[in-house]
Amino acid sequence: MGFDRLIERIRDMQNPTVAGLDPKLDYVPRFICDEAFSKYSDPLEAAAAALLTFNKGLIDALCDIVPAVKPQCAYYEMYGWQGMRALYETIAYAKKKGMFVITDGKRNDIGATMQAYAAAHLGTTAVRGEQIAAFDADALTVNGYLGTDGIKPLTEICAAQDKGIFVLVKTSNVSSGELQDKCIGDNPVYRVMGDMCEAWGEPTRGAYGYSAVGAVVGATYPQQLAELRGALPHTFFLVPGYGAQGGGAKDVVPAFDKNGDGAIINSSRGIMCAYQKNGCDEQDYAKAARAEALRMRDDIAAAISESKGD
Amino acid sequence: MGFDRLIERIRDMQNPTVAGLDPKLDYVPRFICDEAFSKYSDPLEAAAAALLTFNKGLIDALCDIVPAVKPQCAYYEMYGWQGMRALYETIAYAKKKGMFVITDGKRNDIGATMQAYAAAHLGTTAVRGEQIAAFDADALTVNGYLGTDGIKPLTEICAAQDKGIFVLVKTSNVSSGELQDKCIGDNPVYRVMGDMCEAWGEPTRGAYGYSAVGAVVGATYPQQLAELRGALPHTFFLVPGYGAQGGGAKDVVPAFDKNGDGAIINSSRGIMCAYQKNGCDEQDYAKAARAEALRMRDDIAAAISESKGD
Repeated sequence: MGFDRLIERIRDMQNPTVAGLDPKLDYVPRFICDEAFSKYSDPLEAAAAALLTFNKGLIDALCDIVPAVKPQCAYYEMYGWQGMRALYETIAYAKKKGMFVITDGKRNDIGATMQAYAAAHLGTTAVRGEQIAAFDADALTVNGYLGTDGIKPLTEICAAQDKGIFVLVKTSNVSSGELQDKCIGDNPVYRVMGDMCEAWGEPTRGAYGYSAVGAVVGATYPQQLAELRGALPHTFFLVPGYGAQGGGAKDVVPAFDKNGDGAIINSSRGIMCAYQKNGCDEQDYAKAARAEALRMRDDIAAAISESKGD
Repeated sequence: MGFDRLIERIRDMQNPTVAGLDPKLDYVPRFICDEAFSKYSDPLEAAAAALLTFNKGLIDALCDIVPAVKPQCAYYEMYGWQGMRALYETIAYAKKKGMFVITDGKRNDIGATMQAYAAAHLGTTAVRGEQIAAFDADALTVNGYLGTDGIKPLTEICAAQDKGIFVLVKTSNVSSGELQDKCIGDNPVYRVMGDMCEAWGEPTRGAYGYSAVGAVVGATYPQQLAELRGALPHTFFLVPGYGAQGGGAKDVVPAFDKNGDGAIINSSRGIMCAYQKNGCDEQDYAKAARAEALRMRDDIAAAISESKGD
């Protein structure tokens, strides 16, 4: 219940990070692309095969040190239904390797349509009496602009099937304040959304105090991150913005509670593209990803330790 | 540019409505399901084949009287990548029949990720030097909670490729007010979002004064619909909530400008499931959909005419 499974994996690995799997073809080593394009004549099928091979290599290299992966739907959808098949197979592979999978889809709608999204990404679809899991992630990012009607179909599935959601609260981008920082009475919109997360999550609190309704809060706004950590004691945070977007280890420290729980920090390009950044042989992309994941883990651990005055 | 293509189709057909294609398997006539399930052993493949046959029948029956269709992504995603293939084939078929296609995905993200969504649903994806359209709709619904960073990648593609977007402004559901009606200074959130739509759309205004950045405004809130029509003179409206959700023809009248332009009214279940509601033979589902689409067209035309005192 809540995010217990994720929290336990984070504790076991002493690593509160998640690797984003946002595999544009530009990020995939040439030898993987060459093999896929020699095998498939349909370019989208070839592209999807290349993404999947790339992802599997990353998952193999990360699954014993990183508790979770976060595939970003957009990078699969841009390769059509073939790309969506690669998403499905990526999720299945990561789960087989024991990883917690957060599908980053920022889905949102109401009523029966939101039930359909919930079934698609977290639950199952009824097909002639059979219950079939279409994508079957452990958690899904969602957008709460439509209010409770858009969240309730998800929390019902979270409670029944031990899954979770992350609602966009304060996003990491430069223009996030255009709406999110505007004040409603004394509270900015992100705080109003955060308070709704606490309320939506209330019936799904787990053993560590966190509910199944988490929040996305960017590392690029450390002050708001600290404010929200204090204000939302039962809301687990997914924190983008570390690394490529400019957030440092010190910036993410406020995301954690006094036990060191309460948040998971994402890095996508930093890990996926470590081999490009380091200029190492592309054959070693997975090794480079692992090295960067370990560096990130230690970087964050050191910052947390320093903040406690250890 | 803007929504000119859609506006011209609406004028030609004298019908400002769009048929939602939200094909849950429960809505598909049994004879279509039986055929699909006898042909495919994979249940999701069979389900997807049934959805596609159902959609094609609807499109054939509607394409000369209804200017546009609106497939809702959730109902395809719930049938996995197989369902996404049915979405792709539905869009291609509708476009071949001359219909304007609005993909209802309510997508949202930032920067490179939003570019990926824009490429997926409106533009093209570069695959080894080739530009391939993954889903290729004419317009996409999006969520503006993340601000300009989430919209600019779309407006660039809209301008370059004559496509459009609809941003959620005031949604049709009961709880939409939880955030959208809250006041920022003197203006409710929906008005702040609406004003952003006007600004985002400014460089893409077409021949009829409407930009490529439209807004979703629900028929279930006719007062806000009237307020927003007055305040957002360059923003074309996609109006859900007619029929099954409780909005009547009188409620949608305020969505239109004095020329009768400015909005398109959606009906999904009302049209798709007309055969179930009317208790007619399921073999006649497409005929029933056409009759309901004509009834809806005339219902709205009569209400507009009445409001003008004709």
